[in-house]
Order: sequence, then C-alpha cells, then structure tokens
Amino acid sequence: MKLWKKDYNINKEIEKFTVGNDYLLDKKLVYFDCIASMAHAKMLNKIGVLNEDEVKKLIKGLDEIIKLDKAGKFVIKLEDEDCHTAIENYLTEKYGDVGKKIHTGRSRNDQILVALRLYEKNELNKIIDLIDNLIISINKKIEFDGTVKLPGYTHMQKAMPTSIKIWFGAYADSLKDDKKILQSILGIIDQSPLGSAAGFGVPVFELDKKMTAELLNFKKVQENPIYCQNSRGKFEALVVDGLVQVMMDLNKTATDLIVFSMKEFGYFELPKEFCTGSTIMPQKKNPDVLEVLRAKYSMILGYGLQIKSLYSNLISGHNKDMQLTKEPLMKSIDLVKDSLKITSLIFSGMKVNKKNCEKALTPEIYATEEAYKLAKKGKPFREAYKKVAKDLQDKDKSKIGR
Amino acid sequence: MKLWKKDYNINKEIEKFTVGNDYLLDKKLVYFDCIASMAHAKMLNKIGVLNEDEVKKLIKGLDEIIKLDKAGKFVIKLEDEDCHTAIENYLTEKYGDVGKKIHTGRSRNDQILVALRLYEKNELNKIIDLIDNLIISINKKIEFDGTVKLPGYTHMQKAMPTSIKIWFGAYADSLKDDKKILQSILGIIDQSPLGSAAGFGVPVFELDKKMTAELLNFKKVQENPIYCQNSRGKFEALVVDGLVQVMMDLNKTATDLIVFSMKEFGYFELPKEFCTGSTIMPQKKNPDVLEVLRAKYSMILGYGLQIKSLYSNLISGHNKDMQLTKEPLMKSIDLVKDSLKITSLIFSGMKVNKKNCEKALTPEIYATEEAYKLAKKGKPFREAYKKVAKDLQDKDKSKIGR
Amino acid sequence: MKLWKKDYNINKEIEKFTVGNDYLLDKKLVYFDCIASMAHAKMLNKIGVLNEDEVKKLIKGLDEIIKLDKAGKFVIKLEDEDCHTAIENYLTEKYGDVGKKIHTGRSRNDQILVALRLYEKNELNKIIDLIDNLIISINKKIEFDGTVKLPGYTHMQKAMPTSIKIWFGAYADSLKDDKKILQSILGIIDQSPLGSAAGFGVPVFELDKKMTAELLNFKKVQENPIYCQNSRGKFEALVVDGLVQVMMDLNKTATDLIVFSMKEFGYFELPKEFCTGSTIMPQKKNPDVLEVLRAKYSMILGYGLQIKSLYSNLISGHNKDMQLTKEPLMKSIDLVKDSLKITSLIFSGMKVNKKNCEKALTPEIYATEEAYKLAKKGKPFREAYKKVAKDLQDKDKSKIGR
Amino acid sequence: MKLWKKDYNINKEIEKFTVGNDYLLDKKLVYFDCIASMAHAKMLNKIGVLNEDEVKKLIKGLDEIIKLDKAGKFVIKLEDEDCHTAIENYLTEKYGDVGKKIHTGRSRNDQILVALRLYEKNELNKIIDLIDNLIISINKKIEFDGTVKLPGYTHMQKAMPTSIKIWFGAYADSLKDDKKILQSILGIIDQSPLGSAAGFGVPVFELDKKMTAELLNFKKVQENPIYCQNSRGKFEALVVDGLVQVMMDLNKTATDLIVFSMKEFGYFELPKEFCTGSTIMPQKKNPDVLEVLRAKYSMILGYGLQIKSLYSNLISGHNKDMQLTKEPLMKSIDLVKDSLKITSLIFSGMKVNKKNCEKALTPEIYATEEAYKLAKKGKPFREAYKKVAKDLQDKDKSKIGR
Repeated sequence: MKLWKKDYNINKEIEKFTVGNDYLLDKKLVYFDCIASMAHAKMLNKIGVLNEDEVKKLIKGLDEIIKLDKAGKFVIKLEDEDCHTAIENYLTEKYGDVGKKIHTGRSRNDQILVALRLYEKNELNKIIDLIDNLIISINKKIEFDGTVKLPGYTHMQKAMPTSIKIWFGAYADSLKDDKKILQSILGIIDQSPLGSAAGFGVPVFELDKKMTAELLNFKKVQENPIYCQNSRGKFEALVVDGLVQVMMDLNKTATDLIVFSMKEFGYFELPKEFCTGSTIMPQKKNPDVLEVLRAKYSMILGYGLQIKSLYSNLISGHNKDMQLTKEPLMKSIDLVKDSLKITSLIFSGMKVNKKNCEKALTPEIYATEEAYKLAKKGKPFREAYKKVAKDLQDKDKSKIGR
Repeated sequence: MKLWKKDYNINKEIEKFTVGNDYLLDKKLVYFDCIASMAHAKMLNKIGVLNEDEVKKLIKGLDEIIKLDKAGKFVIKLEDEDCHTAIENYLTEKYGDVGKKIHTGRSRNDQILVALRLYEKNELNKIIDLIDNLIISINKKIEFDGTVKLPGYTHMQKAMPTSIKIWFGAYADSLKDDKKILQSILGIIDQSPLGSAAGFGVPVFELDKKMTAELLNFKKVQENPIYCQNSRGKFEALVVDGLVQVMMDLNKTATDLIVFSMKEFGYFELPKEFCTGSTIMPQKKNPDVLEVLRAKYSMILGYGLQIKSLYSNLISGHNKDMQLTKEPLMKSIDLVKDSLKITSLIFSGMKVNKKNCEKALTPEIYATEEAYKLAKKGKPFREAYKKVAKDLQDKDKSKIGR
Repeated sequence: MKLWKKDYNINKEIEKFTVGNDYLLDKKLVYFDCIASMAHAKMLNKIGVLNEDEVKKLIKGLDEIIKLDKAGKFVIKLEDEDCHTAIENYLTEKYGDVGKKIHTGRSRNDQILVALRLYEKNELNKIIDLIDNLIISINKKIEFDGTVKLPGYTHMQKAMPTSIKIWFGAYADSLKDDKKILQSILGIIDQSPLGSAAGFGVPVFELDKKMTAELLNFKKVQENPIYCQNSRGKFEALVVDGLVQVMMDLNKTATDLIVFSMKEFGYFELPKEFCTGSTIMPQKKNPDVLEVLRAKYSMILGYGLQIKSLYSNLISGHNKDMQLTKEPLMKSIDLVKDSLKITSLIFSGMKVNKKNCEKALTPEIYATEEAYKLAKKGKPFREAYKKVAKDLQDKDKSKIGR
Repeated sequence: MKLWKKDYNINKEIEKFTVGNDYLLDKKLVYFDCIASMAHAKMLNKIGVLNEDEVKKLIKGLDEIIKLDKAGKFVIKLEDEDCHTAIENYLTEKYGDVGKKIHTGRSRNDQILVALRLYEKNELNKIIDLIDNLIISINKKIEFDGTVKLPGYTHMQKAMPTSIKIWFGAYADSLKDDKKILQSILGIIDQSPLGSAAGFGVPVFELDKKMTAELLNFKKVQENPIYCQNSRGKFEALVVDGLVQVMMDLNKTATDLIVFSMKEFGYFELPKEFCTGSTIMPQKKNPDVLEVLRAKYSMILGYGLQIKSLYSNLISGHNKDMQLTKEPLMKSIDLVKDSLKITSLIFSGMKVNKKNCEKALTPEIYATEEAYKLAKKGKPFREAYKKVAKDLQDKDKSKIGR
C-alpha cells in the first residue's frame, strides 16, 4: 500500500511510467535504508516519540529485512514504488502500529537522500580499494618488466626512448591522484541529510539530527534542509565526475594496450584466454575486452551528462526529476568497479614483449639526445637542434638519392 | 558453444565483462535476426550453397525460434554471447550440419547490422504511429478547449494574449515536423548491409545482395562493405538525434503543464488519478508523471552522447566498442515510445480551467494592441510604442503615489 | 539607442553580461536581417502601412547597410545589443520617421528567427557544396590509387584484404549520405517565421506572411507563432546534429590517416609541408593537422550539447536563454566548413605507399578465403572455419616448437 | 620564426587550420609562461647551462615581455603559432644567442603544461574569492530579509512554510561546499610538470625539477613525465567539473528568481535597471540577465564535454588534440567569474516582497504541522497523516458541493 494512499487509485499507466525501474534500482538501497531507519528510530526514542519497546520491535523488524535482503528474498513491488514503502509496509504488517510511527519526523525525501549517501560512501570506499589493487597489479608488472626500454610517442609518432617503468608508472601515478580526488569527494558528501524531511525541516518535534548523523557515522549534519534537497543531483554529479577521472585513466590504458599490441608493434600481448575470435575469420584473436574497457568511458560520460542535465533549470526543493539520477549513478559505480577489476586482471595476464620493444628503438629517436650533447658542449640549444635536424634531413635525402 | 570456438576457453571474468548485458539486449533482435537469416538462406540456395531441402529445414528452424521467442521461451545465455550464436546453435543442435552452413557468406558483423537496421526501421515506424496518436489527442483537446484565451509568455512574463488552439497547436505542428524528420531518417538508413560480412565482403562466393535486400524490404543495398561497418554508430546517432527532436517537444509540453498547473496560475489541471502524494504532507497532489516526462529528455541526451562518444577516434572497420551503442539505442527507443503514450493519456485526462485562463488576461497584455492601434492611425510604430510605454509607466507611478 | 528605451538606463554591468558577445556574432546576420527587412517593408507597403516613397527609402537604406557590411564597415556596438537595433537606428538616423515605422508588425523575436534561418539555409547549401568538393578529391585519389591492395582491420587487428578503392570509397559513400541528411534538414527548416512577431502574431494589422515567405524564397510559412518560437533551438539542434554526421566521417578519416601513416604501418604519407615539427626533437614530422581535424569532432559534440541543454525545461514562447544557441551554431558551421576544406586538401596532398600496403598483406589474412574454398567444396562453413583455425594454430605451435 | 623551422615552409591553409585561434587564446598565458621561463632560466644557471650574465639578460627580457603584455602590446602572430614561440623569438631578436639557449631541457609540451597550470591555480583562487563575495552578498540579503516567511515548494507545488533565511542560506551553504571542492582540486593540480619535456624527460642534462617547482610555488614535482602529458585534459576536466558545481548553484538561483519574480508569485523583484524591454510590447520588463545566467550552465556543460571527449581513445603521451582543451577551459573560467560577479550584483539589487511572500502562506501548507500535532498527542504518524488528508479532502468536496 502506498504511504500517501488517499481515497482514489492512481492510474495504472501513469504509475508504471512514473515509477519506471526505480523499484528495481532500490534493491541496492534496502540495507542502507534499514540502517538509517534504525538510527532514526533510536533518535525518536530519545526525543520521546517512541518507547523502548517500540524501538526494539522496529529494530528487530529492520534486522529481519536486512537478512531477507541479503538472502535475495526481500521483494519491492512496482506498486510499492520504492524501498521506503516496502520497508514501512513490512514493519506495519508484522509489528502493527509501531510501523506507522516510524515515519514521524521524516519524509521520503530525506530518507532517500540519506540512503543514497550511505550507499555512495560505501561504494566510493570500495572503489578506492579497487584502485589500490590495480596499482598493486601495475607495480607487479613494473617489478617484472620495468627495465624494458621502448619508444615513447608524441602525435602518435615515435619520439624519444622511455621504459615500461615510466610508462606503466604513469598509470599508477594517475590512479593515485584519482584516489585523492575520490577521497576529497567523500569528504564533501559526508554530511547527514536526515531530519531535513521534505526539504523544510520538521515542525512540532525537535529532532536530534546530530545523534542520527553520529549513529550513521557521518562527519557532520547537513543543516540547511533546502540545501539537503538541492544537493541531490549535485552530489551525484560530483561522485560521477570523480569516477570519470578513473575512467579517463582506464580509457588511456586500454587504448595503449590495443594499439601497441597490434602485430605491427607487438610491444604487448594478451593471453589468448583473454581474447575472442571471429565467426568468419579463423585466424583472429581479438582484444574485445580492451575495446569494451575503452568504450566504458563513453558510457560514463553519458551517465554524467544525464545527471547534470536533469539538474538544470529546476527550482529549489525536491523535484521528481532527480529520481532519475539514480540509474546513471548506480550504473556509473558498477561500471567503474567492473572496469577496475578487469584492468587488474589484464595487468596480471598481459605480457611485455621485450624483443619487439627494443627492436623498435630505431636511431632517430635519439636525435634529442644528440642535440643535448651538442648543447652540453656549449652550442645554444636552438642551434644544436637545427644542426641535428639538418643532418637527419641530409641523411634522408642521401637515402633517397641512392 | 561459441561460433569461433578454438582449443582453449575464454577466461570467465573476461567473458562476463566483455559480453556485459548484450545477450539480454539481444532479445529484442531475435525476430529480426531470424527473418534476415531466412533471406540469407534463400539467397544461399539461389547461388547453390544450400539445396532446397536444406533451406526448408533452416526456415522451419528459424520459424520455431520466432515462435519460441514470441512465447518468451527462447533463451540466450551469457556463454552464447549474443542472439546470433544462440540461433546458430539451435539450428545445429536440431537440424545438424545444415546449421553449420547458414553462416556461409556472412559474419556476425553484417548479421548484427542487418538485424539492428530491421529493428530500427520497425521501431521508427511504430514511433511515427504514436506521434500520430498524440497529435489526435492534442487536436481533440483543441476541439474541446481551443477557443479559451489565455496569456502568452515571453521571458516567463506575461506578454500578449493567445489561445489554447494556438498554444497546443504549436505542439502538434512541432510533432508533425518530427514525423518528417523521422521519415527522412528512415529514408537514410533503409539500406541493406547484408553481404558486407566482416566489413570486407566475401571472397570465393558471389552473393546476391540485391536479392536479400529485396526479400527484407530494403530500399537498396549498402554496397560498400567498409561503409556498412562505419555506419554502425553513425546511423544509431542519426536515429537517436531524431528521437531527441521528439523529446524536445515533450519536454516543453511537460514543462508548460507543470508550470501552468501550479495553483498560482491554475490554467491546467491534472486529474487526481494522475497525481501522487507525499509521505509527509497530507495535502499534496504532485504531478510526478509530468516531472518524469520532463526528465526523460535528459536521459535521451545522455544516450545520444554515449553513441556519439563511442564513435570517436576509432579507425574504419568493426570495433567492438560499437556493441555498446545497443543499450543507449534501445533505451532511447523505449523511452520515446513510453513518453509518447503517456503524453497522449495526459492530453485526454487533463483539464483546461477556462475561468483561470481568462482571469489572467490582465490589461497590460493588451499594450501591444494599443500601440498597433496608434500605428494604424499613422503614428510611426516606434513612437506609438513609446507613448504606450510612457502611459503605462505613468499609471504605475500614480498607483505608487496613491 | 535601444529600441525598447524607457526613462531609465540599464545597469552597465548587467548590460555587458546580458549582451555578451552577441553583438559580435550578429555580424554574420546583418546581410540576412537586411534582406528580410526589405521583404517586410515591401509587405508593409502592400498592406498599406508604408507608402511607395517610404519603402524606397528603407530599401535604399538597407542596401547601404549591406554594402557597408560587405566592406566590413557596418559596426554593431555593445549598446546596440544586436544587429536589429543597429539597423533600425541607422535607418532612423539617416531617413527619419520611416525608420521608426519598419518595426510595425514584427518583433525582434521573429526578426532574429528569420535572419538565422536564412543564414542557416545559406550555410547548409555551402556545406553541401564543400562535401561535393571533398567527394571529388577522394574520387581523384581513388582513380589514382584505387587498385592498391592493403589489409582491412577489425578490432584494430588485420582481418581480410581490401583495397584503397573500397576503403576511401567508404568515406565517399558516407559523405553522400550526409548530403542527403543535410538536404532533408534544409527541407524541414525551410519555413518562414516572419510575421509571428513576439510569438503571438500581430493584432490590428493583417500581415501577408505568404508574401514575405515567397520574397525570401521560403518553401512555406511557419504558421503557428508559438511554434515559431519553440522551433528556436530545436532547429539549431537539428542543423548541428546534421553537421555532427559530417564530422563523424571526418573524425574517422583523420583517425585512419593518423594511425596508418605511423611509420609502423606506412600505408599513407603526408607531404612534409603539411606537417609541423617539435621544439625539442629534431627528427619529428607531426601530423598536427590530422590531430586537430580529429579533435574538431569533440568540439562539435560540445556545441550540440550546449544547444540541446539550453532548450531543456523551458516553457513555450521566447526565453532569452535561446540567444546563447547562436555561438555554438555559428561555431559548428564554421568548424565544419574549415574541416571539409582541409580534408579536401589532405586528400590531394597525401600519398598512398603501395609497397608498404602490399607488404602488409601477410598470409593469415587469407584465412577466410581458405575457409570459403573448403565451404565451396561442400564442407559446412562452420567446419571449414574450424579446420582452417586448427591448421593455423598448429602452424603457430610448430613455430614456437622450433 | 617557428622554433622547429626546417628547410621547407608549412602550407598556409594547413597552418591556419592547425593553429586555429590558439595564438589568440595564448594571450592569457604570456605572463605565466614568462615567470615559468624565469624559473627555468635560474635553474639552468644553477646546473651550469647558463652563466650569471645570460640569466640576467633572459630575466630582463622576460620582464620586458611581461610589461609589454600588461600594456596590451605584446603581439602573438598566427605564424608564431603560440606564446612560447613569440617569447623565444623576442628574446633571441633582442638578446641574441642566449635566447636560443633558454629552451635547453624543455619542450613546448612541458612549457604549455606549466603555464596552464599556473594560470589555472591563479584563476581558481580568484574564483574562490568571488564565491566569498557572493556569499557575503547573500548573507547581507539574509540579514535584511531573512525573517520573511514564504512557501517552500516540492514538485513545483506549495509544500511547507520556510523562510528567506533558509532559502537563501541554501545557496550560501552550497557555495561553501563549492569552495571546498575547488580547494581540493587546487590541491590535486598543484604539481609542477616542468622538466618533463616532451613527455619523456631530458637526457644528458640533470635538471633540478624541485628547484623550479619551488620557485613557482608548486606544492610538489609531478615526477612521472608521461603522467605529466597524460594529465593534460585530465586536470582540465577536473577544473571544469569543479566549476560546473558552481554553475549548478547559480543555475538554481537564477531559476528560482525567474520563477518567483513572475507577477503570479511576486516574491522577488528585480530593479528596473536590471531589466530589458521588448521591441514590440511596451509593457515588458524582462529579467534577461537571469535568463542568461541560467543559460550559462548549459554552456559550461558543453565545454566540459569538449574536454572530456577530446581525451577519449588517445594513446599516452602528447597528442595535439589536447590543444583544443584550451578554449573550453578558458571560456569556462571566464564564464564562472562573470556569473559570480553578476549574481552578487543581483543579490544586492533585488528586493524580497514581504507582503506577497506572506500572502502566499495559504492554510494547506500547514497540513504537515497539523499531522505532527496529532502525532505528538500519540496518534501513529501514518494515521495522523491520513486523518488530516481526509479532512482536507472533505473540505474540498464541501466547497465543490456549495
């Protein structure tokens, strides 16, 4: 039954369109809604709205839901609209009147805010761990192959010599910065919106927002209730932008590995167990996994845009549009987690082909070094540069002359 | 079993990541892949690759798959990778060697292209019908309420008088242009890619591409096999851009209805069966359905971006990245269909509040008319304008003076 | 002087922010605004608002402005806000009262709409010509080098043999479809908005919208005045989406040329006059022009997004936000024109290195052909495929064994 | 003269296309390139590449350029390509050989990186100050009008009472979080890339990267030279994403002010000096400034996309494509600065109309309070809610009955 049930029924088509797949997405939030509800119940007890016995019942019920959910048995129906309704209905059906009391002093608006924020914090922390794992994978590869020399490229043209240590080390350094970015995002969103209700706080009752914030391990209370609402979409954009930074790195990694594992370079090799075949060309071993990894970057760009576009040109306070930020947020998070895991796997499986790398160190990529040697001897750098350039051109011409 | 199966197994993690939810999305394509396979089989018969008996078996098998699929019983497993594999496996399991022959002269690359294109044509035609339905809904509303006068707005400020006929007529005219846009897109994509194989045509056999194109009701053959591949993503972007045009209209409609059904205007009213309530505020009747409709525009912007971004900086020929265009394409199509249906419903349910509309026709919105009257009498328009403007200012001041 | 001048002055900071660089962008519109004003004046004469003498003066004045503008001497000042004001001011200063009459029966809202639409039609036609030129350039290259064979790629891996004729022909075919797309867009936007005034038509006077539409060579009148306004942004999105299709092709062309002119492939060569150097590496000849060409695709994606995002969540009728569509529209048009010209130049300058192309036709890319030969002899294709695949694997293993 | 000048001239068309407006954008970087060059020169002196006299000359020359630049007299020509070339050419022309020595141990690749980063740090700090100013403006408004009560909205429907203090306080709190976001971004990008040269460091010479980092006030050296290159575009995306957060707030503020200064609400009023008129409707006073402010959000979304899209699918190391990130970066920064200034101005000029605000506090928005009062007396909240909802419905019906 809907929490806002009146004496009429909503049109079924309208309901289906309005709810969309929100009730399915909410599965990821059941746990977080339950622990936030526990904190809320304890607080209601402290301020005298619920007695000891009522709180115990509620916490028992919420614990049951968490267990059902873990076992994959807590169902949210389309008619429930969302996890909040399914949870309150469960409590009321099983424990009677006390279920009807838990919504005192809150609205679905702050309920979803707090659940999402707990979810985001939890996921960001997991992602930071996955970044750490990937850095470890990269570093292992560097330990093994770091000393291999190969050409560095600019403008997709051979430029100067570099090494696996530096090349792969660039990925690792970039990922380390990503961790800092995600940690600072965690720092920003770590504010409890619980108690902001529909966006205008709660009259009559004096909620203890500090208590719920502490119980839920938030760094602080997000005091302004309208800001709580306005931060929906804003914080999600922030989170996804942080994740985009991670995907920038993985997109570059995938692009490097695809290009330089082409036979024409042969610097890197994927084990055949990582490759797929063609249905028509018997000889093919395709690096599909790298292409899909590369492609995920475009997907997250789209999700980020959805969130930011949803936010535009809306007045302050809750607008239902923001509900649609849930899917791009969750898809972004899952995408990044999957991509980080698969990249770790790729680094442990791939091979650096030392022979091909070194064979590619053709003479011209030492031209800069030659110019510097002249500069060291006192020739102004720009003249040294010109001399080396001219020598190379002359050599080219004499080749053609032959 | 994979069609490209070699003497090793693909790593499970890699497979899961690479396939993603593609095998689920492919459900929408089973029918189209089957009819394209039928045409391909008939052509193979004509050019002597299959005999009569073999074609009959294949068509029988494909018919069975179509029926299973309609009944929701044709399953594509993750290990199948896609519908193409599931279909070929079904045929081979049930009809033996002939199943192994159907892939002669094609690749999954042109197989997916042709299935997608048939799907797109089919869906665009459905969407054009839905637009027609919506135009009918709007016109009915205009028949009923068209003569109601109300203020037109510029800069979100009352500007000049207009009528429901003109206002809602603007939606209808815009949708009529959308139809033309979608029809011209249909005209562009109506080319059969079947026979382009992996993107480089087929050696040894002389396929009859014209025959399959005709059997499948394509306007022409897409002759260049590399262009067939390069048009993947390109055509999908074209389709989604056309759909964005539709959503621009619905976004504007939804925004109008949300703003002008605010109590402060009261021009329009949604029946309560179309509204949802709040869990905390007993008085609320919220136009969630309109907000979600409005929000869908942002979603399709994101999907469009995903497709266009996936296309960028890739060389000619098939790149696996393009597989990821499937989800944003399908999501866009479903989103537009749902949105068109719901908007029709909204127009049949909503009410125009004549009293509120007319009450809003306050004197100042006739200022332009007054200026024109002066102009008609011979005063240069710019001076007539200034006179009316000054009169209005004086009136304002005298009001303040009182 | 502002056309809407009242008895106060606008705050300078506000004015600067509001006008932005709009008065500079409007330079591109002066000509089109003048010819639309001529048509409007003739129509006002026909319906009796202006006499013969007045029309002559106005047309003379507008002709002067067109000439000044061509000579780069018609100045629009920030305080003018836009070209419309600068033009009316010029007429009034030079020809007195008649200048104050020309605005009868129109608003800047339909004035800018008609000017923009004339501009867009003009530019789209130019772009179609530039596409034709590029197709000619490509075809010349094909005439010269079309028979050269080289490897076709899938998944950035050598796949099957193809030829320059097919490869470059794919670009040409794609551009031909772009032409059709742009022509159909031209067909959609070819409606005259003149006479829709501020978005609510004109009271008192009976304008002859058909006459102005014909004078300006529009296919038809855009009848609904609110739709005229609502089509601002919508049509610009349509135009830019069409241009994106062109840039998709050029992005792919540039990517191909960059990758396959890498020394490791050497299929294509840019003349050194097309390349730039490095300030540090004396040996470098970089294909900057191709990289910039490739990058333009990302730029137009951003411009397209700006237009579509500006449109979102705004009510019907004119909203000032739409003014900001001007810059992304104009930037997109210029970008595409420049890119088409430069690509033609590239095709006339670049070389196909036949020797490198053919050297790259290594045996494994004939595997499909071998499988087909077996299939032709009667082996089911899937088994032929497997046999060839196994043979290749065995060969690989024996190589490793050695 | 080009720094990489060889024995041929670049094609003029190619050059124009490749350089684009980059040489104009570089004006913003002259100062930063000069101070980075000073630090580089001092370091070259320390490591023995330049003697005391040479450093003095170079610093004198660079000082001259800074002064010329401040006076608007330092010109970068298209043929110069960029500020780096213009600066080196100036030094060489005026001070001879020493000018040719300054490029020792660096490339334009790290030169532009360090100049951009100094520019970004400088601008971010300015923006943080502008945010502070805006918060002050808002707080002044709150001091003045904070106690005014008005309706809060959810779903664009009156919801519960709130106050100017809370409403405008939400803007201030959001801006405070933006400051933290920008500060953390500053923390990330505060790494000196100088010494990474073309992306592969410098052979032969032993640069003192720590010294230049300290002279330029960077928190640390960005050690990995490939990461230096890969961070181009990545850091720009990070910066612009931070700025998007600011624009999210200003977009919401503008939207609120536009909607609620509509006559139908009348909560807020812009002074007429902030408004523009219509050329056709004498009565209009339009909040153009707010619409343009609102629209800027869409512009920055497009710029952000350009940067992120440019980054995609490129291999490690310098790619010329990244040059095109300069314009969207600079446009975003200027846009945010202008928008923050104008918003401060708006808050100091606008008026809160207390009478209209309080008149809008109609009885139904106290429904939640009533329900809470019943809940306080012991009725379970869900039942209290239902009772109040039913009472309201009955009242509505009795009204209709009358």
